[in-house]
Amino acid sequence: MAPAYADVEVGTALPTQMFPVTRLTLVRYCGASGDFNPIHWNERFARSVGLPDVIAHGMFTMAEAARVVTDWAGDPGAVKEYSVRFTRPVPVPDDDSGSVIEVAGEVTELLEDRRVKVTLTATYEGQKVLGNAVAIVQLP
Amino acid sequence: MAPAYADVEVGTALPTQMFPVTRLTLVRYCGASGDFNPIHWNERFARSVGLPDVIAHGMFTMAEAARVVTDWAGDPGAVKEYSVRFTRPVPVPDDDSGSVIEVAGEVTELLEDRRVKVTLTATYEGQKVLGNAVAIVQLP
Repeated sequence: MAPAYADVEVGTALPTQMFPVTRLTLVRYCGASGDFNPIHWNERFARSVGLPDVIAHGMFTMAEAARVVTDWAGDPGAVKEYSVRFTRPVPVPDDDSGSVIEVAGEVTELLEDRRVKVTLTATYEGQKVLGNAVAIVQLP
Repeated sequence: MAPAYADVEVGTALPTQMFPVTRLTLVRYCGASGDFNPIHWNERFARSVGLPDVIAHGMFTMAEAARVVTDWAGDPGAVKEYSVRFTRPVPVPDDDSGSVIEVAGEVTELLEDRRVKVTLTATYEGQKVLGNAVAIVQLP
């Protein structure tokens, strides 16, 4: 159930969520996305190009972060714009627990037509992995 | 162009083909097949369960072997039955060349209604990887 525009103000926090990501997640995302770059599934290759480990697809992190907004808004269609910068990779070790991406969100601007700007903060081990992560959301 | 039934006899050989399979092939096949068993993409896991390396999906090998028949028959629809047993795994090392599956075929029986039985022999490094690999093919 989406919050009403009238009940939201600058500073309203969205529920923070944790998103686990394992090697299996990434093998699945390779097929789902069509992006089979070996940096996402081959540790030997990833290290050979200077990465600390296999890393998550940036689009995967972007998509997971969006769930914080869509779960809050109650409807994916309510998200009118969404953009991020990929600022830091999320390394994914070869074990069952993998890595965890924490995503927080906050209303940072009230716009016209009952729209609000939501700014997301996605972190892995306390460091931001997305920059300028902003969604424009239509509220009822 | 399919061979005519009248031109085929027991002992007629199908053109032998070689099928390369790499780790990338298997990550792709995970998504295509929906079979994400880690024995097909995680070397550490594969070895932990007693396999010599990551191994190819049996259905992948089965599918590649079928190409020898469909390429010969000129039409996938000409294959009326197809069955194999998975007798030996195909290990796939972590390099660009991967492994090669060699598939030979031979007409082993003339059947009614212009159908023939084709028996396939799929090998990896000289050892059979499929058992009782048989296709029933409709010829013109």
